Amino acid sequence: MHPDPPARTTPAPPPVDAGWGVGPCAPILSGVTSDAPPELLRLRSSIDNIDAALVHLLAERFKCTQQVGVLKATQGLPPADPAREERQIERLRDLALTAGLDPVFAEKFLNFVIAEVIHHHQRIAEDA
Amino acid sequence: MHPDPPARTTPAPPPVDAGWGVGPCAPILSGVTSDAPPELLRLRSSIDNIDAALVHLLAERFKCTQQVGVLKATQGLPPADPAREERQIERLRDLALTAGLDPVFAEKFLNFVIAEVIHHHQRIAEDA
Repeated sequence: MHPDPPARTTPAPPPVDAGWGVGPCAPILSGVTSDAPPELLRLRSSIDNIDAALVHLLAERFKCTQQVGVLKATQGLPPADPAREERQIERLRDLALTAGLDPVFAEKFLNFVIAEVIHHHQRIAEDA
Repeated sequence: MHPDPPARTTPAPPPVDAGWGVGPCAPILSGVTSDAPPELLRLRSSIDNIDAALVHLLAERFKCTQQVGVLKATQGLPPADPAREERQIERLRDLALTAGLDPVFAEKFLNFVIAEVIHHHQRIAEDA
């Protein structure tokens, strides 16, 4: 499914991370200018790992909301639920404060995701 | 920084799941109408768990990008890095496809997060 790792005929470059340099989960190092500070490369490697986790969690979230959409469409429930969204926002703001995330950003983030979900639900309802 | 949660002067509604009904990680059950289908409640509980994970990962991501911002400001590097962003988008689109997430949404999501990061970096550079 993915290419063999390159043969190590030359001495390996000093590792910047654990060496998972193959496949989409690999840190994005190719094309990084060699004069980038090592600390920057280290942080970017962590950001890339976190982004991979975020994408997988978002995929899982949309699998859930897809099922919610089908359920709502078959039971004739409205795609949006403002009261539920208000509670979600309030809770995520609290969680954000605990985690050291700007609660304003957490709210913007949830609204961004919910907008996409409602768009999906409307499509499901139209197709039903 | 945020208002106290409303006092529970009325009895709490009966729990619908495993009973982790305390604290910000608890599923959002209060205010859910009792005639909501059990399947909807189950899915919402999963969505709430995923959202808690997303918020914590985003908090961790911003801790990394905050350090990147300080590094860039102290070393006089520009806040934005279009080549790096292009590679990030390409990789996340690939990851999204593997995970069953709409790659267009993955790209929109990354742009949404990066816009916030650049905003942070600009503030850090202004304060430096």
